[in-house]
Amino acid sequence: MGDQKIGYLGPKGTFTKMAVDALFDGGSYISYESIPACLDAVESGEVETGVVPLENAIEGSVHLTIDYLVHQVNQSIIAELTVPIKQHLLVHPEQKDQPIERIYSHSHAIAQCHQYLHKHYPWAELEYTASTGKAAEIVAEKGVGVAAIGNHLAAEENGMRIEDTDIHDYDNNHTRFAVVQKHPQTLKVKDHPVSKQKTTVMVTLPKDYVGALHQVLAAFAWRKMNLSKIESRPMKTGLGNYFFLIDVDQPYDQVLFPGVQAELAALGCEVKVLGTYPSYQIDVPTPVKRT
Amino acid sequence: MGDQKIGYLGPKGTFTKMAVDALFDGGSYISYESIPACLDAVESGEVETGVVPLENAIEGSVHLTIDYLVHQVNQSIIAELTVPIKQHLLVHPEQKDQPIERIYSHSHAIAQCHQYLHKHYPWAELEYTASTGKAAEIVAEKGVGVAAIGNHLAAEENGMRIEDTDIHDYDNNHTRFAVVQKHPQTLKVKDHPVSKQKTTVMVTLPKDYVGALHQVLAAFAWRKMNLSKIESRPMKTGLGNYFFLIDVDQPYDQVLFPGVQAELAALGCEVKVLGTYPSYQIDVPTPVKRT
Repeated sequence: MGDQKIGYLGPKGTFTKMAVDALFDGGSYISYESIPACLDAVESGEVETGVVPLENAIEGSVHLTIDYLVHQVNQSIIAELTVPIKQHLLVHPEQKDQPIERIYSHSHAIAQCHQYLHKHYPWAELEYTASTGKAAEIVAEKGVGVAAIGNHLAAEENGMRIEDTDIHDYDNNHTRFAVVQKHPQTLKVKDHPVSKQKTTVMVTLPKDYVGALHQVLAAFAWRKMNLSKIESRPMKTGLGNYFFLIDVDQPYDQVLFPGVQAELAALGCEVKVLGTYPSYQIDVPTPVKRT
Repeated sequence: MGDQKIGYLGPKGTFTKMAVDALFDGGSYISYESIPACLDAVESGEVETGVVPLENAIEGSVHLTIDYLVHQVNQSIIAELTVPIKQHLLVHPEQKDQPIERIYSHSHAIAQCHQYLHKHYPWAELEYTASTGKAAEIVAEKGVGVAAIGNHLAAEENGMRIEDTDIHDYDNNHTRFAVVQKHPQTLKVKDHPVSKQKTTVMVTLPKDYVGALHQVLAAFAWRKMNLSKIESRPMKTGLGNYFFLIDVDQPYDQVLFPGVQAELAALGCEVKVLGTYPSYQIDVPTPVKRT
C-alpha cells in the first residue's frame, strides 16, 4: 500500500486540520479552500480520502457537506470523528502589553467566546474572517496590538503565542467530521478507541403527506434500532420536498437493514446508505500557555 | 405606533438585508455583524425586531441561530420568510475588458456557482470572504481586474455593475429567515401573500432511548398534524443528549397542541413552543444587466 493522500478543509490551523492530525497515522495532507473543492478532489481521485465537517463546525456548514454528498458526488462515509472545540486567544510572539485593539476570527468562533470577550476585551473591535485559520494568519502578519481566536494548531502553524486558553463560554461543544472515500479502502489511523459503529441512511419521501416521517421511523422503531440523529433537508427540486438523513446507532447488517429498506420501498420511499462506519472520539488537551 | 426598529445580520448587501427590504414597510434598519449580536440587540431592547437566517443560508448558520434562540435568549419567532438565492457576478463600474484575475465571495456562494466559474473563469483565483456583502465591498475598493459573487442589493449598495446574472448552478435554492421579537407586537409589512401558518416546537427527550423520537412523532401523527421539518440538535450538556426542533404546518390552537404537549409531558419530554407565525414567500426578479 502506498502513501495515503488525505484532503481536508483548510487553510492550515483549522479544526478540520486538527482532526486530521489527531486521526491519521502518516500520509500526505492536502489543504482545500472549500468543502466542495475537497469533495471534488476525492471524486476525481486527486486524493483517496477527504475530511470535512459534518456537524456543529466552525468553518463550513453541515448543510453544505450533506447536500454535496447527496447531490454532487458519489462517495461513502467511512469514518466519523468527534473533536472538542477549544478556543484560545492567539497573539503575535512580540505582543507584550500593547493594548489589543482588534480581534479577528470566524463569526461562529467569536460567538462562542461572547462572554469572555465582553468581560476581558469590551473595547476591542471584532473583525470577521472566513475561518479561524485565516484569522491566525492575519494576526501573524499584522503583528502586535491585535489578536485572533482559534485552536492551538493555528497558533503552532502560524508561529503565534497562546495568550489565554479555553476562552469559549461553554464546554461540551464538539464538531463531527466525516471521513469520505470514493473507493473504500483501509485507513492507517492512530490507536483511538471506537465509541460505536454507525450507519447513515438517506430516505426520500415520494411526496409530502401527513405522518410520512412517522411511518418511516416506525420501520426502525419496531426493530428496536436506535436513531441518534435525524434531519430533514430540502431537495433541490423546490420548496416542500424533503429528504431525511438518519443516523442509526449500529453497523449495517444483512438482516435488519434490508428489512427496513424493503419496508420503506413499499411505502414509496427511496433509500440510500451513505455509509456504515466507526465513530472515533478524540480528546484535545488544553495547551500550556507559552510565555 | 412609533417607527419600527429592525436589526438584521449585515453588512449591507447580504441576503438577510434583501429579505428585510422585501418584507418590511418602512422603519429603521440596523445592521449587526453576527447572529448573536443581532439577537442580543433584540434581547436588550435596542431593536424590537430581529431578522436572522434560519435555514440554507449563505451567511450564517441555521445551527447558530437555533442554538442561540434555544439556549441564550428568550424570544419568539413571529414570522418566517423564504427568499430565492440568486447569485450575480459583480464588477467595478470602470471594469471593461481587463482580465478578471480574482473573484471574491463567501465559500458557500462560490460553491453554488462552481460550474459557472469553471466554465467562464477557470483561471481566476478564488478568495473567500466572511459574507457576500463583504466581497462586494472589497471589489468596490479594489477596482478593475477583480469580481465578486453576490446579490443585486450588494451591487446597488456598493455602486457595482452586474456583469452577469443568475450565475448559480441550481435554481430552487432558497433561504429561510426568522423574524424574532422579545415582546410580540404587530409588524408593518408590505402586501405579501402568506403561504401558510406554521408552529415551531422544541422537544427535549428525558434520555436517549430506543424509539423515543418515534413516540414523539406519534403524538403528532395520530392527530393528523403535518410536520414539514424535523431536526435533532445536540444539547450543550454533552454528546448524545439531543433536542428536536419540529415545524408543524398549522397555527397553534387550544385543542390539538395542548393535547400533544400533555402527551409528550407524560413521556417525560420537555416541550417549548418557539413561535406560531405566518410564512411569507418572497420573489426576487432577476435584475436587468446595467451596461
